[in-house]
Amino acid sequence: VKVSEAGGEYAIIELAREASRGLAGRALDLGIGDDAALVRFGDQTVIVTCDILVESVHFRTDWASPFEVGWKSAAVNISDIAAMGGVPQYAFVSIGVPDADFDFVSGFYDGLRSACERWTSTIAGGDTARSDAIVVNITWLGDLSGSPAILRSGARPGDALMVTNCLGDSLAGLNLLQAHGQEGARAISTGLVDAHLKPIPRVEAARAAAGTGAVHAMMDLSDGLAADLTKLCAASGVGARVDSENMPVSDELRSVCQNYCWKPSELACVGGEDYELLMAVDPSRVNEVRAAVRCTGSEMTVIGEILDGDQIRVVGPGGVESDLPDSWEHF
Amino acid sequence: VKVSEAGGEYAIIELAREASRGLAGRALDLGIGDDAALVRFGDQTVIVTCDILVESVHFRTDWASPFEVGWKSAAVNISDIAAMGGVPQYAFVSIGVPDADFDFVSGFYDGLRSACERWTSTIAGGDTARSDAIVVNITWLGDLSGSPAILRSGARPGDALMVTNCLGDSLAGLNLLQAHGQEGARAISTGLVDAHLKPIPRVEAARAAAGTGAVHAMMDLSDGLAADLTKLCAASGVGARVDSENMPVSDELRSVCQNYCWKPSELACVGGEDYELLMAVDPSRVNEVRAAVRCTGSEMTVIGEILDGDQIRVVGPGGVESDLPDSWEHF
Repeated sequence: VKVSEAGGEYAIIELAREASRGLAGRALDLGIGDDAALVRFGDQTVIVTCDILVESVHFRTDWASPFEVGWKSAAVNISDIAAMGGVPQYAFVSIGVPDADFDFVSGFYDGLRSACERWTSTIAGGDTARSDAIVVNITWLGDLSGSPAILRSGARPGDALMVTNCLGDSLAGLNLLQAHGQEGARAISTGLVDAHLKPIPRVEAARAAAGTGAVHAMMDLSDGLAADLTKLCAASGVGARVDSENMPVSDELRSVCQNYCWKPSELACVGGEDYELLMAVDPSRVNEVRAAVRCTGSEMTVIGEILDGDQIRVVGPGGVESDLPDSWEHF
Repeated sequence: VKVSEAGGEYAIIELAREASRGLAGRALDLGIGDDAALVRFGDQTVIVTCDILVESVHFRTDWASPFEVGWKSAAVNISDIAAMGGVPQYAFVSIGVPDADFDFVSGFYDGLRSACERWTSTIAGGDTARSDAIVVNITWLGDLSGSPAILRSGARPGDALMVTNCLGDSLAGLNLLQAHGQEGARAISTGLVDAHLKPIPRVEAARAAAGTGAVHAMMDLSDGLAADLTKLCAASGVGARVDSENMPVSDELRSVCQNYCWKPSELACVGGEDYELLMAVDPSRVNEVRAAVRCTGSEMTVIGEILDGDQIRVVGPGGVESDLPDSWEHF
């Protein structure tokens, strides 16, 4: 059986879920299915997330420097911990490399270290192996440092749907890299290329928003708004309306889109790897959340509303409704 | 620069150590360099270990069933937690697979689950990716459940050097697999093949030994006695004498060795992946440790002594001394 025929990565996640069912081990606060797991040691809740990155699938060494691959590997994990409202603490790095790639490993660790410095984490362990393609798995541990965890499952009908900063930049950067390679893409837009290669996890914004007590559900946008909102709605048992005209889009994206006949709101809706935050917020406290997040240097935009039911509708120009566009599937 | 020219996996570990130096994150109880790391959350010490396994490097799908790969992936991590004196609790599984290999993933999780059931752990999360070769990283979290951690660094001159059960079976099993394939090898010795494909981590033995308070240093034998004793001695700042005639060797290994002109004591000395425990024990309490461990179904043998200095000498038949044989290097 092929993975793609069995249902893609969700079929694998289902196997993991099956395998974990009924295991006699210690109860989990939160297992498979959110941005990160919450496990318990005594009175401590520990946040755990892992990401596996494979050369040519998740990164290309002709587009991304080893430093950038290291940074991004860190960022995606840190972003998952941020999405729970947590604080990143310890990184464990497993790396498989061909014999020839020692310099890659060196640059990779520089990038990783740089992200650790910015988000006060420590590299605490790992493993190494020989491998034909470069493959990296990072497991990051964090904690809640006194705040409650914000899950995907807490959204309620009537909640304002909000996102941090701008969406779509990362996909636009990837498109430019695919069309023009690293140098050509940077000549057109360093900002969009950096959005793809050096994303900024929104740790401070997430903590500030969570600290208001007005955020009912939160996740980070790794697979794109369309895919991720679907997950948040499924976890919460709700539907949503997205106003595509309200999608926050950067000036840089808008100007590049004009030259390429791309639609900014579409990139913002399907584009993955922005690592911005998606939140369902108490509608009476939108301004409070926005103000708290602004203090961390991030803006927030209301892009729609949580609704009863299980449908997600996109409202476009002139009030025309449509379904969510298709999203990214790994297999 | 090639990894092999830069110093192999130790050069990569050194890069990780460099990258972690001076990071402002929370202090570690124990970072890179032991079987597992000890990290702190509030008053809780959490044991963390990871292992990355790459198809054709760490396992071959024509020799090992997916179940066996799953079991062994679990066992090597559980063994690292056992080697600290800890109790395994939570597993995080990242798996990269080609599209064609859904059935592998399914069998893999069966094996993983089986090990989780035996050592009361829970599968708590993970990640999936597409990849040309199968690659698996497992990060396992455990705790000390009230016992002190036993490190590699506590060995003292005069300590008895002890190991659990028998050594060399796993390498013999690997040799048989290489020479005869799965079916042929099993026809010669199921026990040796199982020792290689389905190792048993010594969680209960480690807990029992640690519980006596007489174990000064402990690690698991993953790279073989020669390599691992070198690490234990370096971490403790001591030397050692190994009596090769006292090496515990199974009847099955002895009988297969006769047919292949292999030397049992040599296999026991260099063979990796036995996942038995190596301990430095208070010499006046050897019998007490042996009795405690016997209650868990494992035997212990004194194979030498911890000495002053930094030399490791092997004493063979007739008191002839030699250096340690060469050990396994991944690059």
